[in-house]
Amino acid sequence: TKRYSITLLPGDGIGPEIIFVTKNVLKLAGSLEGIEFSFQEMPMGGAALDLTGVPLPEETLSAAKKADAILLGAIGGYKWDKNEKHLKPETGLLQLREGLKVFANLRPATVLPQLVDSSTLKKDVAEGVDLMVVRELTGGIYFGKPRGFGINEKGEDIGFNTEVYATHEIDRIARVAFEIARKRRGQLCSVDKANVLEASMLWRKRVAAIASEYPDVELSHMYVDNAAMQLVRYPKQFDTIVTNNIFGDILSDEASMITGSIGMLPSASLGESGPGLFEPIHGSAPDIAGQDKANPLATILSAAMLLKYGLGEENAAKRIENAVLDTLNKGFRTGDIHSAGNKLVGCKEMGEEVLKSV
Amino acid sequence: TKRYSITLLPGDGIGPEIIFVTKNVLKLAGSLEGIEFSFQEMPMGGAALDLTGVPLPEETLSAAKKADAILLGAIGGYKWDKNEKHLKPETGLLQLREGLKVFANLRPATVLPQLVDSSTLKKDVAEGVDLMVVRELTGGIYFGKPRGFGINEKGEDIGFNTEVYATHEIDRIARVAFEIARKRRGQLCSVDKANVLEASMLWRKRVAAIASEYPDVELSHMYVDNAAMQLVRYPKQFDTIVTNNIFGDILSDEASMITGSIGMLPSASLGESGPGLFEPIHGSAPDIAGQDKANPLATILSAAMLLKYGLGEENAAKRIENAVLDTLNKGFRTGDIHSAGNKLVGCKEMGEEVLKSV
Ligand SMILES: CC(C)[C@H](C(=O)O)[C@@H](O)C(=O)O
Ligand SMILES: CC(C)[C@H](C(=O)O)[C@@H](O)C(=O)O
Repeated sequence: TKRYSITLLPGDGIGPEIIFVTKNVLKLAGSLEGIEFSFQEMPMGGAALDLTGVPLPEETLSAAKKADAILLGAIGGYKWDKNEKHLKPETGLLQLREGLKVFANLRPATVLPQLVDSSTLKKDVAEGVDLMVVRELTGGIYFGKPRGFGINEKGEDIGFNTEVYATHEIDRIARVAFEIARKRRGQLCSVDKANVLEASMLWRKRVAAIASEYPDVELSHMYVDNAAMQLVRYPKQFDTIVTNNIFGDILSDEASMITGSIGMLPSASLGESGPGLFEPIHGSAPDIAGQDKANPLATILSAAMLLKYGLGEENAAKRIENAVLDTLNKGFRTGDIHSAGNKLVGCKEMGEEVLKSV
Repeated sequence: TKRYSITLLPGDGIGPEIIFVTKNVLKLAGSLEGIEFSFQEMPMGGAALDLTGVPLPEETLSAAKKADAILLGAIGGYKWDKNEKHLKPETGLLQLREGLKVFANLRPATVLPQLVDSSTLKKDVAEGVDLMVVRELTGGIYFGKPRGFGINEKGEDIGFNTEVYATHEIDRIARVAFEIARKRRGQLCSVDKANVLEASMLWRKRVAAIASEYPDVELSHMYVDNAAMQLVRYPKQFDTIVTNNIFGDILSDEASMITGSIGMLPSASLGESGPGLFEPIHGSAPDIAGQDKANPLATILSAAMLLKYGLGEENAAKRIENAVLDTLNKGFRTGDIHSAGNKLVGCKEMGEEVLKSV
């Protein structure tokens, strides 16, 4: 038997429910492939703030660093919304990404045939969408310095941030994106604002340079405003998108909504080496927390990404992916993706149904 | 008779065609309301580059500053795409905005009942969408300093830009947005990334402070990633949106595509005093330039905004707006908005049809 240690970060809101369900799915899929997991649950986000006074306790980060992979539920909630910056759950998440050096954030947006009607886009526009946003996650305006508050020459308050990219940061995310595009349909679209921003001009130049290492991948460039339009106009034109931290934040959320089933979408955050971080792209949904209404499938599919991208366990990953599809084919739906003719289930029951198909 | 001087900047691609048609509509609508225009055509963008070597010649800027209002066609094209930054058509546009100090960019996105089928969104999601994006246009990361290229501690190339806002910049755009929301449905949504960026934290604080001057307007705040999703999920929730330069660039383009008829959408850019700049939100469409295929309606509606917001001539503005609706009701459509059962016309014929209804 192979053994892996997984750090679980349930976090806030619906986080604990979806992690509980997913842990069981992961266990079973592993055991059927001769894999044994040891799980360690650690506090993070608002839960950690309440418990320890900080959103990412040192013990949590060091446990995460030692693990083979990390599975996160969701963080945040109204309760901590007015906190100062260093005491926000979100700050804990940024510290975790930085601490783990997971610079590559993979966000697939796929429209499953079973769920095409959940999209607000017309059926012929939505069906068949299958794209991957590769977002740079530990650089750019999220982390750039100088940043802060100050006073300008006129004695006025100012707030400022720095969008900055260095060659190696662009090169490494570009390589990840080219590798992914190569395994998909061989098309990479790099999104920037190179008609205005110097940081984007360097981005475009470096991505174009790295392209010579991947002659089998077709590279195109698009301005971010146009990309935001094209995702609505004709999302099927995209295979793999690579972009910076802030544009990736915006475009990946837009892309996920285009699928209409954001409760279904997983993500992976990977570094050069060290454990990867896996989490659903949806938030902590405090309004339905503790009511057994959450859709656990995005987290379950994040566990599949954990197996595939984090541990290289493709067979166990496939088991989970197929189990999710089976469960949908049988007609089981949580409230967020429910439509007439299907079976409405809660978070736990959805998890049990997936277990039956693993 | 009242007299106004208008600087026309036809620009590149389809720019000259749509400006030609619009000039005639503006003339007629004016004359029917006792208004006489004098027009001065000046080079700008790629056309100016070819003629004078710079994208915004001094003569163009000083003529524009002296005018009562400026009507711009479109700028840019493949020909100048590889130019260095200071020789790009886009740089001319940014210099024009800065030179005119037009800090408030108004971008309505409306789904006309006649064109609801052009949207890629389902009919029930698209119909009735009527929102206005108020974008800050002369600050933020577009103009912030320091910016440029450099070398970091490790000897690597870097590219960097500064997102910076000062109190007065936020206050004045917030006031414009509150005034507009007040004349619309009384709801203002301020979009930022205050969970991560200090520039956004100051933005949110100042917008909230200015809100006390407008107790009749309901203010809400939304993160930009969520806004990008909500525009796809349920665009009707929005009345007026106010946001910074770069987020406004992205979200206004996304919103325009949601209407499905980007060839219909005008914009206005206004300053504290001095002439406003009016232009369609679409680009220069070099692929169809000179073929009499362009849709002139976005520019014609920009002329209506020029009359309304630029000159305070509401009656003449209404004439143009109504003429456009009449023309659509009669079934005339350019290729971009054409569907079975309607009459396909070119740019000129569309202009002539609008003239008949002014
Ligand atoms: C919570 C927030 C800091 C975060 C981000 O902006 O990266 C989130 O929106 C995301 O995309 O994971
Ligand atoms: C052409 C470009 C510089 C411009 C911008 O980014 O502002 C355009 O996209 C716009 O929105 O008017």
